[in-house]
Amino acid sequence: MSNIPESAQLGNYVVIEDNVILGEGVVIGHHTTILEGTQIGDNVSIGCNCVLGIKPSVNKRMRKTSKGYTNLTIQPGTRIGHLVSIYSGTIIEKNVFIGDHASIRENVSIGEESVIGRAAIVELNTTIGKSCTIQTQAYVTGDTTLEDHVFIGPCVSMSNDKYMGAKHYSLKGPYIKTGAKIGNNASLLPAIVIGAKTIIGAGAVVTKNLEDKIVAAGVPAKKLNW
Amino acid sequence: MSNIPESAQLGNYVVIEDNVILGEGVVIGHHTTILEGTQIGDNVSIGCNCVLGIKPSVNKRMRKTSKGYTNLTIQPGTRIGHLVSIYSGTIIEKNVFIGDHASIRENVSIGEESVIGRAAIVELNTTIGKSCTIQTQAYVTGDTTLEDHVFIGPCVSMSNDKYMGAKHYSLKGPYIKTGAKIGNNASLLPAIVIGAKTIIGAGAVVTKNLEDKIVAAGVPAKKLNW
Amino acid sequence: MSNIPESAQLGNYVVIEDNVILGEGVVIGHHTTILEGTQIGDNVSIGCNCVLGIKPSVNKRMRKTSKGYTNLTIQPGTRIGHLVSIYSGTIIEKNVFIGDHASIRENVSIGEESVIGRAAIVELNTTIGKSCTIQTQAYVTGDTTLEDHVFIGPCVSMSNDKYMGAKHYSLKGPYIKTGAKIGNNASLLPAIVIGAKTIIGAGAVVTKNLEDKIVAAGVPAKKLNW
Repeated sequence: MSNIPESAQLGNYVVIEDNVILGEGVVIGHHTTILEGTQIGDNVSIGCNCVLGIKPSVNKRMRKTSKGYTNLTIQPGTRIGHLVSIYSGTIIEKNVFIGDHASIRENVSIGEESVIGRAAIVELNTTIGKSCTIQTQAYVTGDTTLEDHVFIGPCVSMSNDKYMGAKHYSLKGPYIKTGAKIGNNASLLPAIVIGAKTIIGAGAVVTKNLEDKIVAAGVPAKKLNW
Repeated sequence: MSNIPESAQLGNYVVIEDNVILGEGVVIGHHTTILEGTQIGDNVSIGCNCVLGIKPSVNKRMRKTSKGYTNLTIQPGTRIGHLVSIYSGTIIEKNVFIGDHASIRENVSIGEESVIGRAAIVELNTTIGKSCTIQTQAYVTGDTTLEDHVFIGPCVSMSNDKYMGAKHYSLKGPYIKTGAKIGNNASLLPAIVIGAKTIIGAGAVVTKNLEDKIVAAGVPAKKLNW
Repeated sequence: MSNIPESAQLGNYVVIEDNVILGEGVVIGHHTTILEGTQIGDNVSIGCNCVLGIKPSVNKRMRKTSKGYTNLTIQPGTRIGHLVSIYSGTIIEKNVFIGDHASIRENVSIGEESVIGRAAIVELNTTIGKSCTIQTQAYVTGDTTLEDHVFIGPCVSMSNDKYMGAKHYSLKGPYIKTGAKIGNNASLLPAIVIGAKTIIGAGAVVTKNLEDKIVAAGVPAKKLNW
């Protein structure tokens, strides 16, 4: 059984499984499910029709994720929209905003005050720093690192799989340094490094590492002089 | 309390909050929530697991939307799929079709007989004319105008933020004139104007205003002669 | 009424409509709806807040799909995530994996052990072979064929409508042969053929048929020599 504080506001048909911890002043919308073991801090608000604390599942052609993952932890003041899915083994820090229809996988950490946009997806084993903005429909692949104050435009795409499904290769997503900004619908290849405060144009395809404080655009992305 | 006409067909576990107005012959699927103040016209059909009439919410790093927005209004004959989210302050005109997993923000208007595709997203303060087609997974950013009979292909991306998260700049999305057609996965930059009946190729990146009745493609998009 | 085997594990607030057939050992998550006539094989697992067995619906500007479609059939051992929508008239073979937020339309077939990624969309009248991988947010348009062992990277976009909404033209999506691999965020035009074991680079725009066993990239995509 889970202990529900009197200060919690629960919608209709909410399901709270066993061993869930709810802080004070938590709001949970109608038809939302909080799965076993999830820990939710004070004044977190969660919309309708969400599923939080999902345990990973695969079929036999997919890679298995590390066992022994921990529970989902959501720190105080974070706001989660409607129709959102979040996995266990993930930590969401204080005052984060997660938009409707977003999905966040296991073994992810998201820093304070970051914004995860509507229908954005963050895959497993990824670290997102403080005050980052991941815009609508952006795709942050697995095994990726974003330092602080990174801006990922709408519909940006990333990959972590250089050999596209071939086996016995390790997966590695991009590494994006502090303050970099990626334009809408840009494509980032596996394992590339994007320098601090570097700006990538809309629709660019980034195939090589880029140094700090440059502007790059095009297919493949090249440094612009301005 | 809301007044539910006898002609309404409600699924199981439907939640209808206070001050909702339902017309005659409305159909609402299982597990759908109609939030406070929503107005739904005659013969509107709504799928399962939807959330309609959402009030906007932000964290402190996001812009606040105008206060005093009105309720969500859905005019007669409109059909809404499953797992859809729609905000308050929005008007959806007659006989619109909204696909499953779509999301529509506040202060939006969508004209008669337009189609909003599966998992398409329409951001705040945007106007979509009559008989437009927004295809699957397309992203219509905030502060955007589509005149009538515009075709937005699947996975098209737009931006309204020239400075990517820098503050104190106004946001402005594209302005797309009557009958223009945008190919799949094209990227449109902030504030560009696309002329009437102009056609943009798949995967193009549109960085400048384009005149009426031309065809443009490439990165950046250039006028083709044909 | 539907016959629920004693070995089924149903979550809270599950809705199972009439004439549903459930095999042994089926697991269904909270707030999920199984619509009329759906047939689910042994040991299928389904997440929370899903809607399965949807009948197609259109407005008067959209093409009607063939009448007389059959029910949704899900073969044994398949796993379906959370917040997923699947239409009737579709067959999902054994041991398929379907990620959260995915949507699959009517008259689709998906072969054994294929993986449909998180938020990926498969449109109507499409055939996907065995052991294919459709990655996160990829868009497989209608009237498309994927042979076996095809890899579709994240955010890949396809089109089946050469005239973008003009009427009286038939729709035809890509035909992708065995073992081809498409990089992330590539765009495929209508009716193109991609050869067996051919590899397409990230962000490429494929405008012409491509032969077997080549590598192509760029806008428009051209054969690379290596």
